[in-house]
Amino acid sequence: MVKKITIAIDAMGGENAPDKTVEGIGIFLKKNKNINDFQLNIFGNQKKIDEKLKNLNISSPLIKIIHTESTVSDEETPLAAIKNSKNTSMWNCIKSQLDQESDISLSAGNTGVLLVISRMILKMMNEVSKPALAGLWPNKKGINVVLDLGANIECNEDNLADFAELGSALYRSLYPKEQPLVSLLNVGSEEIKGTEVLKKTYKKLSSLSNENNFIFKGYIEGNKITEGDSNVIVTDGFTGNIALKTAEGTAKFITDNLKKSLSENILSKLSLIFSYFSLKRFKNKLDPRKYNGAIFLGLNGPVVKSHGGTDAIGFYHSINLCYNIVKGNLMQQIKKNLDHLKSE
Amino acid sequence: MVKKITIAIDAMGGENAPDKTVEGIGIFLKKNKNINDFQLNIFGNQKKIDEKLKNLNISSPLIKIIHTESTVSDEETPLAAIKNSKNTSMWNCIKSQLDQESDISLSAGNTGVLLVISRMILKMMNEVSKPALAGLWPNKKGINVVLDLGANIECNEDNLADFAELGSALYRSLYPKEQPLVSLLNVGSEEIKGTEVLKKTYKKLSSLSNENNFIFKGYIEGNKITEGDSNVIVTDGFTGNIALKTAEGTAKFITDNLKKSLSENILSKLSLIFSYFSLKRFKNKLDPRKYNGAIFLGLNGPVVKSHGGTDAIGFYHSINLCYNIVKGNLMQQIKKNLDHLKSE
Repeated sequence: MVKKITIAIDAMGGENAPDKTVEGIGIFLKKNKNINDFQLNIFGNQKKIDEKLKNLNISSPLIKIIHTESTVSDEETPLAAIKNSKNTSMWNCIKSQLDQESDISLSAGNTGVLLVISRMILKMMNEVSKPALAGLWPNKKGINVVLDLGANIECNEDNLADFAELGSALYRSLYPKEQPLVSLLNVGSEEIKGTEVLKKTYKKLSSLSNENNFIFKGYIEGNKITEGDSNVIVTDGFTGNIALKTAEGTAKFITDNLKKSLSENILSKLSLIFSYFSLKRFKNKLDPRKYNGAIFLGLNGPVVKSHGGTDAIGFYHSINLCYNIVKGNLMQQIKKNLDHLKSE
Repeated sequence: MVKKITIAIDAMGGENAPDKTVEGIGIFLKKNKNINDFQLNIFGNQKKIDEKLKNLNISSPLIKIIHTESTVSDEETPLAAIKNSKNTSMWNCIKSQLDQESDISLSAGNTGVLLVISRMILKMMNEVSKPALAGLWPNKKGINVVLDLGANIECNEDNLADFAELGSALYRSLYPKEQPLVSLLNVGSEEIKGTEVLKKTYKKLSSLSNENNFIFKGYIEGNKITEGDSNVIVTDGFTGNIALKTAEGTAKFITDNLKKSLSENILSKLSLIFSYFSLKRFKNKLDPRKYNGAIFLGLNGPVVKSHGGTDAIGFYHSINLCYNIVKGNLMQQIKKNLDHLKSE
């Protein structure tokens, strides 16, 4: 028997938990009813989870509920969490990875606490200088992995080189047939541009560039991220966080304006009848729920953070992401890349 | 006689110059045919400019051409420009401010060279620690001034406090009836978030906050820039450049996808008949040409940089911006704000 892909899910994190998370689990089971190479270990309040499962008429031999009494609150600071979070759904979820009962963890709970306790429990990989939070971002040709998105406010060239290796490994686990193409986010594409740290990283990545690993494409400017000429965008956590959130805000601003324009009068409303399916496909392609899930990389096991405010569909997409990451052998890809880094 | 608002225009900068720039001047003259409180001093190749003016049937007592033999090329590095750019259209344009022949300069030429020679010729104001490049960015309620957009890769708390004063002065010159509301771009809205420099700037701006000057609204995250709860967004040039370009790229990515979706089949094309005017208003509101023009602040005279790739309409908007800046007494507003800073 082949070992099953086991996903540990914190059912109690995020808004409207566990309703939303259980509904997301239901969607995942429905969409994957023809396969059974996975198992979902659900951590949280057994009674509440059972109720919701019953409500939604979900029953499957592929799910197992592990009861926990307490939950990490959204107001908890990471510092307080070290004391208070033991035996919460989030804690036990990640702990199950350490006990080799699961391959990956997923939570929509408090980000700061999740990063801190993941690191405490799983520990950083020996070869990594700093862990990073990676996100998925659509581009013209497919998907970008962007990292770091905020785990590390300040980074040096060794950290950024690690991020390139970790991000490439993630990309390869998700798209095994594609070549990771790494770019370094900067204010210009010429070699002389940017901070000293970026210039040193440029040199480092140039020497690491290699088909078995990743191809380094040089600097990239913010307006080229969506072009698709690279697929792994490396930056420090401060810049990455600002870039991601600015992109989110801009996308929302534009689509809000579009919605307003298309519902402003009877003619424009009429047009919606004809453009309904086209606009639906447009909306679907750019639906942020499809890209829900930031991946915490560099620990002895991957942890996925779902957006706290997402709905069941968004949560389903992050379960799917967990499944694909484990199926694509992320941890082996990372080890391979880090061995390469060590041998440099 | 009231002194005229005199705008020095480098006609030779950017793609398709001087055709585009002269056409932009034509639009400005046409739109302002009922006023005559301005004068446009046009620097560049007299023959080429005259030809284009004749082609477009433009003639006005409000324009004056000042011939220059040479032009700053787009390939010129700022360092080489110090030697080579003397008596180019860009140089003489800015020089005319020093000679008090004009109130403001406008160029669509090489950005790096423009920043360097503006600073060389006009010199930094005594009270300013670093000059900044400010841009205009639409939000839900109106316009944001965002600075720095790339003049300074690394900034300390004194620089960022100066940017708050300069940006507020610009905002007040453009919108005299509004209160400048300053926010500091960061990865979270809580006081404990961000780098040491940001925490120090937070304190500084809190103590400077004052109705005569600006109201400090605290930290702002990237996704809130377009909300309109602030109107002056302060950041270092590295982060500002990445944020601006990422927003540009995202906007382009979304509108390209929308265009594609709305022209993919006969039904969606049919819908365009009904939504034509609504989509046109949508497009018009978000037209980047309307926000064309970055303002170089902190020198003894304002310099406006038009996007090199913009068209005549974009160039017209940056002439208009120059007019509004001088009419709103930017330099007096800056001096007022800096006096306040000194008295702290």
